[in-house]
Amino acid sequence: MTPDQTRAAEILQSHRESIDRLDSILVYTLGERFKHTQAVGELKALHDLPASDPAREATQIARLEELAGKADLDPVFAKKFLNFVISEVIRHHENTKNNK
Amino acid sequence: MTPDQTRAAEILQSHRESIDRLDSILVYTLGERFKHTQAVGELKALHDLPASDPAREATQIARLEELAGKADLDPVFAKKFLNFVISEVIRHHENTKNNK
Repeated sequence: MTPDQTRAAEILQSHRESIDRLDSILVYTLGERFKHTQAVGELKALHDLPASDPAREATQIARLEELAGKADLDPVFAKKFLNFVISEVIRHHENTKNNK
Repeated sequence: MTPDQTRAAEILQSHRESIDRLDSILVYTLGERFKHTQAVGELKALHDLPASDPAREATQIARLEELAGKADLDPVFAKKFLNFVISEVIRHHENTKNNK
Protein backbone atom coordinates (compact mmCIF):
# COMPACT_ATOMS: atom_id res chain seq x y z
CA MET A 1 0.00 0.00 0.00
CA THR A 2 1.17 3.56 -0.70
CA PRO A 3 1.41 5.92 2.36
CA ASP A 4 -1.71 7.59 1.01
CA GLN A 5 -3.62 4.31 0.96
CA THR A 6 -2.36 3.42 4.48
CA ARG A 7 -3.67 6.77 5.78
CA ALA A 8 -7.00 6.22 3.99
CA ALA A 9 -7.29 2.74 5.57
CA GLU A 10 -6.67 4.25 9.04
CA ILE A 11 -9.32 6.92 8.53
CA LEU A 12 -11.76 4.29 7.21
CA GLN A 13 -11.12 2.14 10.30
CA SER A 14 -11.74 5.06 12.65
CA HIS A 15 -15.09 5.82 10.96
CA ARG A 16 -16.06 2.15 11.16
CA GLU A 17 -15.38 2.11 14.90
CA SER A 18 -17.66 5.14 15.34
CA ILE A 19 -20.32 3.45 13.19
CA ASP A 20 -20.13 0.32 15.36
CA ARG A 21 -20.58 2.38 18.55
CA LEU A 22 -23.52 4.25 17.01
CA ASP A 23 -25.06 0.91 15.95
CA SER A 24 -24.91 -0.22 19.59
CA ILE A 25 -26.87 2.91 20.59
CA LEU A 26 -29.40 2.16 17.81
CA VAL A 27 -29.88 -1.48 18.85
CA TYR A 28 -30.33 -0.71 22.56
CA THR A 29 -32.62 2.25 21.82
CA LEU A 30 -34.73 0.09 19.49
CA GLY A 31 -34.82 -2.59 22.21
CA GLU A 32 -36.14 -0.01 24.69
CA ARG A 33 -38.59 1.38 22.11
CA PHE A 34 -40.07 -2.09 21.48
CA LYS A 35 -40.57 -2.60 25.25
CA HIS A 36 -42.82 0.48 25.21
CA THR A 37 -44.66 -0.46 22.03
CA GLN A 38 -45.14 -3.97 23.46
CA ALA A 39 -46.79 -2.44 26.55
CA VAL A 40 -48.91 -0.25 24.24
CA GLY A 41 -49.88 -3.35 22.27
CA GLU A 42 -50.96 -5.17 25.42
CA LEU A 43 -53.03 -2.17 26.54
CA LYS A 44 -54.66 -1.97 23.10
CA ALA A 45 -55.40 -5.69 23.07
CA LEU A 46 -56.88 -5.51 26.60
CA HIS A 47 -59.14 -2.58 25.70
CA ASP A 48 -59.93 -3.85 22.19
CA LEU A 49 -58.39 -0.82 20.50
CA PRO A 50 -57.23 -1.10 16.86
CA ALA A 51 -53.58 -2.17 16.38
CA SER A 52 -52.84 0.77 14.09
CA ASP A 53 -53.61 4.42 14.90
CA PRO A 54 -53.31 6.61 11.77
CA ALA A 55 -53.69 9.95 13.66
CA ARG A 56 -50.85 9.11 16.07
CA GLU A 57 -48.71 7.88 13.15
CA ALA A 58 -49.28 11.12 11.20
CA THR A 59 -48.20 13.18 14.25
CA GLN A 60 -45.10 11.00 14.71
CA ILE A 61 -44.11 11.32 11.05
CA ALA A 62 -44.50 15.13 11.12
CA ARG A 63 -42.43 15.31 14.33
CA LEU A 64 -39.73 13.01 12.93
CA GLU A 65 -39.47 15.03 9.73
CA GLU A 66 -38.90 18.19 11.79
CA LEU A 67 -36.29 16.45 13.99
CA ALA A 68 -34.60 15.05 10.87
CA GLY A 69 -34.10 18.59 9.60
CA LYS A 70 -32.36 19.53 12.86
CA ALA A 71 -30.19 16.38 12.80
CA ASP A 72 -29.28 16.94 9.12
CA LEU A 73 -30.85 13.58 8.26
CA ASP A 74 -32.68 13.20 4.92
CA PRO A 75 -36.38 13.73 5.89
CA VAL A 76 -37.46 11.20 3.23
CA PHE A 77 -35.22 8.59 4.87
CA ALA A 78 -36.52 9.54 8.36
CA LYS A 79 -40.08 8.94 7.14
CA LYS A 80 -39.13 5.60 5.51
CA PHE A 81 -37.34 4.64 8.74
CA LEU A 82 -40.34 5.39 10.95
CA ASN A 83 -42.64 3.49 8.58
CA PHE A 84 -40.24 0.55 8.72
CA VAL A 85 -40.27 0.53 12.54
CA ILE A 86 -44.06 1.10 12.71
CA SER A 87 -44.73 -1.87 10.36
CA GLU A 88 -42.75 -4.06 12.75
CA VAL A 89 -44.70 -2.69 15.73
CA ILE A 90 -48.05 -3.34 13.98
CA ARG A 91 -46.90 -6.89 13.22
CA HIS A 92 -46.14 -7.32 16.96
CA HIS A 93 -49.51 -5.83 17.97
CA GLU A 94 -51.35 -8.18 15.63
CA ASN A 95 -49.49 -11.12 17.17
CA THR A 96 -50.38 -9.87 20.67
CA LYS A 97 -54.03 -9.56 19.64
CA ASN A 98 -54.09 -13.03 18.06
CA ASN A 99 -52.47 -14.59 21.13
CA LYS A 100 -55.02 -13.11 23.57
CA MET B 1 -64.73 7.04 29.78
CA THR B 2 -64.77 4.58 32.70
CA PRO B 3 -62.03 5.08 35.39
CA ASP B 4 -60.37 2.00 33.91
CA GLN B 5 -60.26 3.54 30.44
CA THR B 6 -58.99 6.87 31.85
CA ARG B 7 -56.14 5.04 33.57
CA ALA B 8 -55.37 3.09 30.38
CA ALA B 9 -55.29 6.37 28.40
CA GLU B 10 -52.83 7.85 30.91
CA ILE B 11 -50.53 4.83 30.70
CA LEU B 12 -50.73 4.89 26.89
CA GLN B 13 -49.80 8.60 26.89
CA SER B 14 -46.81 7.97 29.15
CA HIS B 15 -45.51 5.21 26.83
CA ARG B 16 -45.98 7.47 23.82
CA GLU B 17 -43.90 10.21 25.46
CA SER B 18 -41.09 7.69 26.07
CA ILE B 19 -41.38 6.49 22.44
CA ASP B 20 -41.10 10.10 21.20
CA ARG B 21 -37.95 10.66 23.29
CA LEU B 22 -36.44 7.40 22.04
CA ASP B 23 -37.28 8.41 18.44
CA SER B 24 -35.30 11.63 18.99
CA ILE B 25 -32.29 9.53 20.04
CA LEU B 26 -32.76 7.34 16.95
CA VAL B 27 -32.97 10.31 14.55
CA TYR B 28 -29.92 12.09 15.98
CA THR B 29 -27.92 8.85 16.12
CA LEU B 30 -28.84 8.03 12.51
CA GLY B 31 -27.85 11.60 11.55
CA GLU B 32 -24.45 11.06 13.18
CA ARG B 33 -24.11 7.60 11.58
CA PHE B 34 -24.75 9.02 8.09
CA LYS B 35 -22.04 11.66 8.63
CA HIS B 36 -19.56 8.82 9.13
CA THR B 37 -20.82 6.72 6.22
CA GLN B 38 -20.74 9.86 4.06
CA ALA B 39 -17.05 10.32 4.95
CA VAL B 40 -16.47 6.60 4.20
CA GLY B 41 -18.25 7.05 0.85
CA GLU B 42 -16.03 10.00 -0.05
CA LEU B 43 -12.89 8.02 0.88
CA LYS B 44 -14.11 5.07 -1.19
CA ALA B 45 -14.90 7.30 -4.18
CA LEU B 46 -11.51 9.01 -3.91
CA HIS B 47 -9.63 5.69 -3.82
CA ASP B 48 -11.93 3.94 -6.31
CA LEU B 49 -13.03 1.34 -3.80
CA PRO B 50 -16.37 -0.50 -4.39
CA ALA B 51 -19.45 1.14 -2.77
CA SER B 52 -20.47 -2.10 -1.05
CA ASP B 53 -18.19 -4.28 1.09
CA PRO B 54 -19.77 -7.72 1.73
CA ALA B 55 -17.10 -8.83 4.29
CA ARG B 56 -17.60 -5.71 6.43
CA GLU B 57 -21.40 -6.10 6.14
CA ALA B 58 -21.25 -9.75 7.27
CA THR B 59 -19.18 -8.75 10.34
CA GLN B 60 -21.63 -5.94 11.15
CA ILE B 61 -24.63 -8.24 10.83
CA ALA B 62 -23.06 -10.88 13.12
CA ARG B 63 -22.17 -8.16 15.67
CA LEU B 64 -25.65 -6.65 15.56
CA GLU B 65 -27.31 -10.03 16.02
CA GLU B 66 -25.23 -10.58 19.16
CA LEU B 67 -26.03 -7.09 20.49
CA ALA B 68 -29.71 -7.62 19.69
CA GLY B 69 -29.69 -10.67 21.97
CA LYS B 70 -28.31 -8.56 24.82
CA ALA B 71 -30.83 -5.76 24.19
CA ASP B 72 -33.73 -8.26 23.98
CA LEU B 73 -34.42 -7.11 20.43
CA ASP B 74 -35.62 -9.66 17.86
CA PRO B 75 -32.37 -10.63 16.00
CA VAL B 76 -34.33 -11.06 12.76
CA PHE B 77 -35.56 -7.49 13.08
CA ALA B 78 -32.04 -6.24 13.96
CA LYS B 79 -30.74 -7.84 10.76
CA LYS B 80 -33.58 -6.38 8.67
CA PHE B 81 -32.91 -3.00 10.29
CA LEU B 82 -29.19 -3.05 9.46
CA ASN B 83 -29.92 -4.12 5.88
CA PHE B 84 -32.40 -1.25 5.62
CA VAL B 85 -29.79 1.28 6.82
CA ILE B 86 -27.01 -0.25 4.67
CA SER B 87 -29.16 -0.07 1.50
CA GLU B 88 -29.59 3.64 2.16
CA VAL B 89 -25.82 4.03 2.71
CA ILE B 90 -25.03 2.19 -0.56
CA ARG B 91 -27.52 4.46 -2.36
CA HIS B 92 -25.62 7.47 -0.93
CA HIS B 93 -22.22 5.99 -1.91
CA GLU B 94 -23.39 5.39 -5.46
CA ASN B 95 -24.58 9.01 -5.66
CA THR B 96 -21.19 10.20 -4.33
CA LYS B 97 -19.40 8.08 -6.92
CA ASN B 98 -21.61 9.29 -9.76
CA ASN B 99 -21.15 12.93 -8.72
CA LYS B 100 -17.33 12.69 -8.68
